[in-house]
Amino acid sequence: MTPIMSKSDAAALVVASRIRRGLTWAKIAEEIGAPIVWTTAALLGQHPMTQTQAQQVCRLLELGKDVAESLQLQPYRGADQAQLADPTIYRFVEALSVYGPALKELIHEEFGDGIMSAINFRVDISRRPDPDGDRVVVTFDGKFLDYRC
Amino acid sequence: MTPIMSKSDAAALVVASRIRRGLTWAKIAEEIGAPIVWTTAALLGQHPMTQTQAQQVCRLLELGKDVAESLQLQPYRGADQAQLADPTIYRFVEALSVYGPALKELIHEEFGDGIMSAINFRVDISRRPDPDGDRVVVTFDGKFLDYRC
Amino acid sequence: MTPIMSKSDAAALVVASRIRRGLTWAKIAEEIGAPIVWTTAALLGQHPMTQTQAQQVCRLLELGKDVAESLQLQPYRGADQAQLADPTIYRFVEALSVYGPALKELIHEEFGDGIMSAINFRVDISRRPDPDGDRVVVTFDGKFLDYRC
Amino acid sequence: MTPIMSKSDAAALVVASRIRRGLTWAKIAEEIGAPIVWTTAALLGQHPMTQTQAQQVCRLLELGKDVAESLQLQPYRGADQAQLADPTIYRFVEALSVYGPALKELIHEEFGDGIMSAINFRVDISRRPDPDGDRVVVTFDGKFLDYRC
Amino acid sequence: MTPIMSKSDAAALVVASRIRRGLTWAKIAEEIGAPIVWTTAALLGQHPMTQTQAQQVCRLLELGKDVAESLQLQPYRGADQAQLADPTIYRFVEALSVYGPALKELIHEEFGDGIMSAINFRVDISRRPDPDGDRVVVTFDGKFLDYRC
Amino acid sequence: MTPIMSKSDAAALVVASRIRRGLTWAKIAEEIGAPIVWTTAALLGQHPMTQTQAQQVCRLLELGKDVAESLQLQPYRGADQAQLADPTIYRFVEALSVYGPALKELIHEEFGDGIMSAINFRVDISRRPDPDGDRVVVTFDGKFLDYRC
Amino acid sequence: MTPIMSKSDAAALVVASRIRRGLTWAKIAEEIGAPIVWTTAALLGQHPMTQTQAQQVCRLLELGKDVAESLQLQPYRGADQAQLADPTIYRFVEALSVYGPALKELIHEEFGDGIMSAINFRVDISRRPDPDGDRVVVTFDGKFLDYRC
Amino acid sequence: MTPIMSKSDAAALVVASRIRRGLTWAKIAEEIGAPIVWTTAALLGQHPMTQTQAQQVCRLLELGKDVAESLQLQPYRGADQAQLADPTIYRFVEALSVYGPALKELIHEEFGDGIMSAINFRVDISRRPDPDGDRVVVTFDGKFLDYRC
Amino acid sequence: MTPIMSKSDAAALVVASRIRRGLTWAKIAEEIGAPIVWTTAALLGQHPMTQTQAQQVCRLLELGKDVAESLQLQPYRGADQAQLADPTIYRFVEALSVYGPALKELIHEEFGDGIMSAINFRVDISRRPDPDGDRVVVTFDGKFLDYRC
Amino acid sequence: MTPIMSKSDAAALVVASRIRRGLTWAKIAEEIGAPIVWTTAALLGQHPMTQTQAQQVCRLLELGKDVAESLQLQPYRGADQAQLADPTIYRFVEALSVYGPALKELIHEEFGDGIMSAINFRVDISRRPDPDGDRVVVTFDGKFLDYRC
Repeated sequence: MTPIMSKSDAAALVVASRIRRGLTWAKIAEEIGAPIVWTTAALLGQHPMTQTQAQQVCRLLELGKDVAESLQLQPYRGADQAQLADPTIYRFVEALSVYGPALKELIHEEFGDGIMSAINFRVDISRRPDPDGDRVVVTFDGKFLDYRC
Repeated sequence: MTPIMSKSDAAALVVASRIRRGLTWAKIAEEIGAPIVWTTAALLGQHPMTQTQAQQVCRLLELGKDVAESLQLQPYRGADQAQLADPTIYRFVEALSVYGPALKELIHEEFGDGIMSAINFRVDISRRPDPDGDRVVVTFDGKFLDYRC
Repeated sequence: MTPIMSKSDAAALVVASRIRRGLTWAKIAEEIGAPIVWTTAALLGQHPMTQTQAQQVCRLLELGKDVAESLQLQPYRGADQAQLADPTIYRFVEALSVYGPALKELIHEEFGDGIMSAINFRVDISRRPDPDGDRVVVTFDGKFLDYRC
Repeated sequence: MTPIMSKSDAAALVVASRIRRGLTWAKIAEEIGAPIVWTTAALLGQHPMTQTQAQQVCRLLELGKDVAESLQLQPYRGADQAQLADPTIYRFVEALSVYGPALKELIHEEFGDGIMSAINFRVDISRRPDPDGDRVVVTFDGKFLDYRC
Repeated sequence: MTPIMSKSDAAALVVASRIRRGLTWAKIAEEIGAPIVWTTAALLGQHPMTQTQAQQVCRLLELGKDVAESLQLQPYRGADQAQLADPTIYRFVEALSVYGPALKELIHEEFGDGIMSAINFRVDISRRPDPDGDRVVVTFDGKFLDYRC
Repeated sequence: MTPIMSKSDAAALVVASRIRRGLTWAKIAEEIGAPIVWTTAALLGQHPMTQTQAQQVCRLLELGKDVAESLQLQPYRGADQAQLADPTIYRFVEALSVYGPALKELIHEEFGDGIMSAINFRVDISRRPDPDGDRVVVTFDGKFLDYRC
Repeated sequence: MTPIMSKSDAAALVVASRIRRGLTWAKIAEEIGAPIVWTTAALLGQHPMTQTQAQQVCRLLELGKDVAESLQLQPYRGADQAQLADPTIYRFVEALSVYGPALKELIHEEFGDGIMSAINFRVDISRRPDPDGDRVVVTFDGKFLDYRC
Repeated sequence: MTPIMSKSDAAALVVASRIRRGLTWAKIAEEIGAPIVWTTAALLGQHPMTQTQAQQVCRLLELGKDVAESLQLQPYRGADQAQLADPTIYRFVEALSVYGPALKELIHEEFGDGIMSAINFRVDISRRPDPDGDRVVVTFDGKFLDYRC
Repeated sequence: MTPIMSKSDAAALVVASRIRRGLTWAKIAEEIGAPIVWTTAALLGQHPMTQTQAQQVCRLLELGKDVAESLQLQPYRGADQAQLADPTIYRFVEALSVYGPALKELIHEEFGDGIMSAINFRVDISRRPDPDGDRVVVTFDGKFLDYRC
Repeated sequence: MTPIMSKSDAAALVVASRIRRGLTWAKIAEEIGAPIVWTTAALLGQHPMTQTQAQQVCRLLELGKDVAESLQLQPYRGADQAQLADPTIYRFVEALSVYGPALKELIHEEFGDGIMSAINFRVDISRRPDPDGDRVVVTFDGKFLDYRC
């Protein structure tokens, strides 16, 4: 009996194969018919895939059954502090630090006491052309859940 | 000579007056003709207002010149850990922890090495009706900046 | 214009009046017709009350309008580390540290990938007589939410 | 002489075998006649098993004597911060942060000065059907211990 | 309505009166007929006193009813990091860091899987004459509690 | 040249051999004629042993010269946070948090300004029978050292 | 006897007066004939001023002798974490996190084993016009100190 | 499929080869025609190199294709706390702690509300001869970005 | 009854009076006939003074009885992180970080297993003229204490 | 190409050889003609050695060229928190916490605004016989550097 390959080891192999074969995350997402942010997050170890999805990915990337098995494992979700300090990710952290309390006020104003679900939830990213420089547009879209006692 | 009122004291008075007069953040934003998330963040102490904006807000909320002076002050931006742990804000923090590395990958795939600016940047929030329960939709929209040496 | 009384100041007055008048939390909860754990948490500053609830509490405890106004305010929720280190609360923290990963496994086994909501959620506490010493029984009851992309 | 296999290595093998053989935690708990949350926690490294329990588990999962030896070892109990930040576990942490002080008040109101034991203690989990979505119900049940000098 | 005096304010008055009147902690403990370590801890804010104990202390120290009321309040127990870093207290912290794992091994060897209760528990301190310099002897005495599922 | 075996690796082998041979810590302490808490702590890596002690232990436990060499090494003393959070050890940490300031007051009252040495110091543990459940009794015994300038 | 006004209180009055009188930091630095970054840092509480400098500043800003006294006080230097997290300051922190190890390599390559002094040191800031947007140019200039034994 | 060599492993090989061949960072930067601080940072793992740059470096240093592949990988940027505490790097950290708030004031005075970009940014280092001891001169040069809503 | 003035408030008054009267720490130490580092530390709140010492200091500095009472109080010893980060103090912290493990090796080589006492201990500071710039010489002098079981 | 041996691996081999050959740190320092504290710190990884020093050490200790190469590498200096918590080192940390602010006051009183250099700096250790028990005497000797703008 051997342990199941860790999701970080599986992610390292997915990344290596993706780069060496010149495949985009978009192409992989298309292959399995799932949203691109979700697919990327799943392959980096943040979501379990179905058996079918894992097998499709491993066929496309020519990875073994041990990787496919790992991709189906239920993960411990979350990034560590070193990842969140990377400048590309940190700008989102900073934006939350600046705008988080305002978002809280406006959620309560519009919806009442409650939260935006981070589970019944999706994230999208797109590029918006702009003459002053194209823009990164990221949308967080979650069901409102009201506090109930 | 007295010190300028702190932005947190000014924010407490803005909140008190807003609630007692039954005014929404939307109404205040409309009054000064600025985006609603920006306006709310500014009044909570995260942005300096122009003299005109500060005076309009204080007239609407019947607050004194000391508040108007404080609203124009250049802030130290950022929320503390206790604020970020509030469940309504924490769901955004959690979403970043789960999706941050995926967003990083996709920004690099689409734009190359760089970041989404958090300065040349805006946040919007809206309500999207949904038969399974309405949804909170928050959009982060920032100019892409590429790393240059 | 004065700021709204902070929820911690309001809680200190609620506690003082409750003790001096010899009233139980159970009695206050009964007065407003709300569950006891929810009511206690709300009065300690963790939930906003409706105007009616706040007024009923302040009438019962002979507290002023400033307290009633504070009780209706939307809170920043959460306890600080010093509170969580109190032995009576810490035993719950320790239990989560020991049983949290097992609960995660069993939630996934029974429900699939998702979480127990902490928003559509309630807590109850009761005393169960036992010849070896009565027992504290605390029940967490939250809607299952499945991860969706 | 070789060191005893660490409990985390043993847990990784238990998990791998459990998944590959399609066995549930419920089935394993039944096999050794112990409560399901306790059994799961023990196999994840939080409780020592008796020799009999360890051998039953290893027979069922076709694991070696080194695993059985490890399962009997007295553990260092507790989860790390990364585990507690997983969304499925974090909801319990958040609930304690919101309701912990209220639970403390109500334990003291009902029992006097003391704590709910986390040692003479058990946890149960169940699924409660609900037309608005089934619910996760977790019960903490510990003996009350009063402070004595 | 005024809030109940905080236990740290009450402790500061107890200490001031104790020093100005030249009373020892031993004398106060004797006055209320309780163990000396418990009494000192209680007056520093770590245990609630009965009404009788609080009134006896306040009579002896000529303190007001507000102090007596505070002494009866249920506390949040625990010291902060700055207190634990004081050299006189830190030596105990260091001793636990050096001997804690050994004590754990020996508790398990002698009693099985379980803990020494910190609730059904008392601490004593005494001076033991020694020709090489007198010694501080501190005894921790708690009921063994065995883990039960 | 090979590095000296780390004290944690040596401890892991001591523990493995002790368990497999069914030897108690008490038996090992008796073998080398040293106090039981000291011996256990030393074998877990907290004290250097003399060559004679190390050889006696390794003969009894049938461990190699590399282990004996490691046991004589001067250690870096101390436990990590994960060890101190284990419930069996944590109860001592909690007791210090509750009673540390009181012990400080009483040491100063009895001895003046100074500390209990944690170096000229010993710890003992014993079991005290009690009809309500046997008790763990741990004694800290250190020389008083007075602050001198 | 009253305590000397804290340097943060003095800084708050300097800032208030500077803003209300419409004076720039550059104007104040010119008044005392000291470098602008040094002057600004000193008035924010990071350097002691000479009596002459303090009096010149207070005359210009019409502040009292208590402020002048405070400005001469020897400070505890340093910013707190909340200040360093402000986006305008954080970009420097991030630049150090990205380039710090490279600067270390190059200092050692050019000068040998040693450091850039932060004491025999000055900072300058200037604006460099650029058709793609003007640039902030900050220069750190410190004496090289070589490690000596 | 093997994972791509980590950037820290690649950096360790670059450093080893650079030292053994007696090459300076300046020489390597010249080879690839890029600024010296940027080149050093990139080789230590803080920037991705182009394929051409990576191949030039590996040819010069006689390193393999696995290193060249790693050098092109998009990094997680940032140093850890242990690196920032090295005295040579720490002096920069300390300078920011002392002068950071002053730089913030002066950026706002000169440019208005905004930041110095750390992305559209470069760092230079030079040696300035000085009769009292040569000086390390480090220049941070970043585009000003103004806050926009 | 009023609380005893805190040692930090007393220190602030000592500092204010010392500066306004132009007295050195050396002069105050001479007045009470105690070592200069000890005296300065005591007046900053780190040691209790005798009644005689406290009265001498207050007479010299023309401070009230409330200050004298505070100076005799038994302190909680220790500096906070902000103080230790001040550059003048931090250089000592850094020196310990660089040389601490070496000092440990050499104490063990010369004295065996044990420590330098920080209680039976004194610190001296002096100025040593040097043509390359005068030097600060600080001596730590503590009794060796050997570990005993 | 292989990476250069890490300085901690080199230190482990130096320690192993030193102990097995019965050599003191004093003997090694004498061999290379360098101060003993500096030499010990360098061999533990805190200073780079010259090629000659490294070769002399490796000849004396019969260590290989890989160790000699590592000893010449420029280090990242500093100890980690676990090392600083070792009782023998911690006593120095504690002494700084108690006396650091006093040393700061006295450096400023004697020298003006500035610091003791930790770079142009040396540490010595000696044993001072004393009838009440020999004493550890550690001297920090650094050049005074005055703050200059």
